[in-house]
Formats: sequence, structure tokens, C-alpha cells
Amino acid sequence: MKIAIDAMGGDNAPKEIVLGAMKAVEAFSDIELILVGDEDKINETLTPHERISAIHTTEVILATDEPVRAVRRKKDASMVLAARQVAEGLADACLSAGNTGALMAAGLFVVGRIEGIDRPALAPTLPTIDGKGFLLLDVGANADAKPEHLLQYAMMGSIYSEKVRGIKEPRVGLLNIGTEEKKGNELTKHAFELLKTAEVNFIGNVEARDLLSGVADVVVTDGFTGNMVLKTIEGTALGMFKMLKTALMSSVKSKLAAAVLKPNLKQLKNTLDYSEYGGAALFGLKAPVIKAHGSSNAQALFSAVKQTREMVANNVVGMVKQTVEENKQ
Amino acid sequence: MKIAIDAMGGDNAPKEIVLGAMKAVEAFSDIELILVGDEDKINETLTPHERISAIHTTEVILATDEPVRAVRRKKDASMVLAARQVAEGLADACLSAGNTGALMAAGLFVVGRIEGIDRPALAPTLPTIDGKGFLLLDVGANADAKPEHLLQYAMMGSIYSEKVRGIKEPRVGLLNIGTEEKKGNELTKHAFELLKTAEVNFIGNVEARDLLSGVADVVVTDGFTGNMVLKTIEGTALGMFKMLKTALMSSVKSKLAAAVLKPNLKQLKNTLDYSEYGGAALFGLKAPVIKAHGSSNAQALFSAVKQTREMVANNVVGMVKQTVEENKQ
Repeated sequence: MKIAIDAMGGDNAPKEIVLGAMKAVEAFSDIELILVGDEDKINETLTPHERISAIHTTEVILATDEPVRAVRRKKDASMVLAARQVAEGLADACLSAGNTGALMAAGLFVVGRIEGIDRPALAPTLPTIDGKGFLLLDVGANADAKPEHLLQYAMMGSIYSEKVRGIKEPRVGLLNIGTEEKKGNELTKHAFELLKTAEVNFIGNVEARDLLSGVADVVVTDGFTGNMVLKTIEGTALGMFKMLKTALMSSVKSKLAAAVLKPNLKQLKNTLDYSEYGGAALFGLKAPVIKAHGSSNAQALFSAVKQTREMVANNVVGMVKQTVEENKQ
Repeated sequence: MKIAIDAMGGDNAPKEIVLGAMKAVEAFSDIELILVGDEDKINETLTPHERISAIHTTEVILATDEPVRAVRRKKDASMVLAARQVAEGLADACLSAGNTGALMAAGLFVVGRIEGIDRPALAPTLPTIDGKGFLLLDVGANADAKPEHLLQYAMMGSIYSEKVRGIKEPRVGLLNIGTEEKKGNELTKHAFELLKTAEVNFIGNVEARDLLSGVADVVVTDGFTGNMVLKTIEGTALGMFKMLKTALMSSVKSKLAAAVLKPNLKQLKNTLDYSEYGGAALFGLKAPVIKAHGSSNAQALFSAVKQTREMVANNVVGMVKQTVEENKQ
């Protein structure tokens, strides 16, 4: 299988992207990687490999670019060209650590939606205390959602969790402000009705405070709320680490104790580091499109390639298409 | 001034409620407190005081009761009677650590809305890294909101922050999925337009990840999103403390170091403990109604009384009424 990689996307591109790609071809003998980007810069890091090819371009979409406009105007940007490899059948999937909004736009306009899926969804796997993680979708591909979209998110999330994450009958929860059936806003009340009779293992409403405890394997919500929850988790975790650092550095005694605890704290940070859980998948497109974390290092990029490979190998897109077809009839 | 207190609400009622009330009358010579609840149980803790009276009732609204139904049916419940003192002009404000939904219902049905305020809002003060805190509203008085409601939240939150929290020209932020003006869902896009020209110190969109850094003094959002963010902060902080504990207890060496750090970690926990920041105020009602945290101890109850006193003394409700009137013309 062939995976197109935007070599120029992310804070540590192209070096860490190239290193991650090299690690991935070593680990998986069934993949071929296409690195899209500035060949001169790529070659500074790349050790030639028969299963790594490159497509040269100097145009890049920046983190600060307005997503939709950037994808429309920068037609030769590394991200757009990577998506085009997929659209033209020259690659089975693509991945980028670049501008999230632009990758969603490239997915939508270049790769294209699966017929019958109204809205694609961006789905990261977030950490839980037990280290198993859960899939949250949508986190911002679409700010406004209808109940039917949440139903499609549930279906796509279930297929992915079963096929790629190996979870049997993944528990699907509807993110809500209370666990009782009648709770919530207009959207969640209607979505609850649809999910009750859907062919997923729906366990009802779940509350935001229980997410880290692993209350569900797949949590569905509209993109606005999902984005809020994602960023609140991030912000709270970062804020707490800052406060913890201040508390630990407040005296000589505490500094010494903190030094002893360094490996333990590092381990805690790793559990919460969702680059460890791979990238965020864009569901509902004609091929897997994966967003690796913007700060991806070689290891995170490797994880994202692994995840992309599993999505292709397990035919997640085909399964989604089939389920959409079946539910139409 | 007179404050009616639901002596039976909360996990530690009536003991900690009564202790908190006793502490408050000692600290503030201008308040009279009316404890509403089971007199026998109250008297087990209460040292008689000339500025503490009691109203006897044995009916109680439970945490598990369905809020609206409970308020309608349990007409002699301690919480309902406390609200009635306010409605009948026998008290200037009321407070409870009991069922949040029921207190919102009692506020709405018994105390009543200010004319011109479409929706009351529940507004807790949440912790920030610098310890100053910020006001978040609404966190769930109303799941669905219209742009005009968010404008009223901004106005009420500003008045409260200025009068009670002593913040000059409080910075009002609109919670959104990006800081750019055009970001968001239909609600936030329209609310942004209204806030731009409103008579508040509107600083634009703020992101959930920056809340703990103190990006704004007043953060407005719909009740569904606010509730999500509140519970995500809670859940993430609790989850991290659990993980931290596991990490620190993993070896003899780390246990020893953790023992040294105990006071530092305790301090961190206190910064994040929002019972320290007083209760959540219900805005938009004809008198101050304050929800103390369900797990309130005497200190938290004392803080909530102090906050209630400041709302009455600074005539927050009168200021809101006046601003509503002025904006009508």
C-alpha cells in the first residue's frame, strides 16, 4: 500500500517527518511512502530507501493560512499534492502534521466525501487514566451538527474502533450535560432518539467529567462542543503541569524531592500526551486522511503512519461505505 | 441585611452549613441569617446567636430528585422555603448547597426573573493559574441559548465582576473554537456581532485552552457548552490527581519524595478547588440566589455567605435591572 505524506507540515518538518517515515518503512514491509515537499530539505535527512519516493514542491501551507483559501489558491502546496495523490489513485491514504483546517479542506475538496456521509468528522484518540484511550468525534470539522450527523459519527467511530483499535462492540456514548435520557439541548435530545435504535453499542449519555475515566470507547458530539472539550482537556492538563512545576520548585527541599520524582512525572506526562495515541483521523472521506499532531516528532509521525496503515489494511473506508449503503435501504 | 440559608442542602448538611453560618455572623456584623431546616438537627450544632434565627421544616429536596417536579411538589422543602423568604420580602437573598437544578427552578418559580432578562444564568467563579479566577456563564441554567441571551450574560457578568469581585472594566470574552472574528457556530457568530457594540469591555473570542491562564475575567457561552467546559476542567483535574497519586505511590523512593511534597501538592489542590472561590451565583433573578458547592464545608459555606452579602451590599440586582431598563430605550 502507498501512503502520501506531507513532509513540510508541522512544527518539526521536514526533519522529524522524514525520520518518522524512515522508521515506518523499516517496521512495515508492506508500505511504500511518498514524501511530498522540498527535495533539497528532505534529502538533508533522508537515507535513500527503495520504498520511499519523493514529489518535489516548494509551496507550503502555513499554520497561519486561512484554511479554505489556502487549499484553493496554493494548488502546489505539499499538503494539497499529498491529497491529490490519493484523489488520483496514486496513493491509498495521506497524512499531514500541518494546518488542521487546511487538511480538512483538502480532504473535503481534493479527496472528497463518501456518498451518503453528509459531514466528515475529525476524530482524535484521547488519553484515559487506564491508558486505553477513547475516540472523540467530531472535534471541529463542522461547528454545527444535526442529529443525523451524530448518528453517522457513531457509526464511523464504531467501525474504526473495532477494526483499527481492536475493541469488540465499542461502547458509544453521547456527550451530554447529564446521564438521564431527557437531558440536554435540542441536538442531543434528538440524537439520543436516533442512537437508541441504531446498530451501534449505544450506552446512553456520558458526562464530560467521566471522559478521562474511560466511560466510553467512542464519544460523539457536535464539532463545536468536541473542540471545546478537547481544548479544555489540553488547557487544564497544561495548566496543572505549570502549577505543579511552580509548587515543586518553591523550595530547596521540594526541588530535591521533585528530582527523585522526575521519571514518575514524565510517565504521567506521557500518559496524557495524545501524540502517543496516533493522529486524528478524518472520517467520511473516500480514503483515510490522517492529521498528526502539529508538534509531532519522529515517534509521533511513526505512530500516525502505523495508524494510517491499519486504516487501509482493515478497509475502514470500505466498511463505512457498506454501512451507509445498508442503512439507505 | 437578611440572608435565608437552606440548612439541609449539600453533602455535609446541616452540620457544616450551621458552622459556616456561625462563622459568618461573627465576621459580619451587618448580616442576619435565617436557617431553614430540621430544628432538632440544626440545634445539635448551633450555638444560639441573636442574629441567627431558624424556620423549622422536615421536608428536603434530595440530590436525586427531579428538579422542577421537586420544587413544585415539595412546597415545604428547606430550599423552597428559603427561596420563599426572599419572594415574600422577609430576606434579601438566599443560598443553598443542595440540588443545583432544583435551586435554579426555585429561583425561577419562587424568586422570579427580572423583567427584561429572558434567561437566568448560573455563574461559578473558576480557578486560574494566577489565583485570580474568572466568571463563567452560563454553565447550565439553560441548555439552548440565543445570541441575545449571551449579550445579557455578558452584561450581568460584567456588573457582578465589577461590583463584587472589584475588577475594573472586566474583560469579557466569548468562548469559541478560535480567536478570529468569523470563527464558530451560528450562535457565536451572531453573538460576536452583538457583543462588539455592547457596553461591556468585549475582548473578542477566547479559546477553552486559555481559560486557566486567565485570558478573560468574564467568559460567556451557552449553558450546554459552559456545563461541558466546567465538567471537563473538573474531570481532567481529578483525573490528573489520580494519575499523579498512582505515579507517586509506585515505589518506596517515590513515596518518600511524595511525602516531602505533600504540602506543595495540597497547595496546588487548593488553587484548583473552586469552593475557595465562593458559590455559583444565579443571575437574572429578582434577588441574589447563590449555589454553594455540594461538598461545602463550613469554610466554603462561609465564603458563599460572604459572596451573597457582597451581592446584596453592592446592589448587583438593582444594577442589572437598571441596565436592562436603559438598554430597552
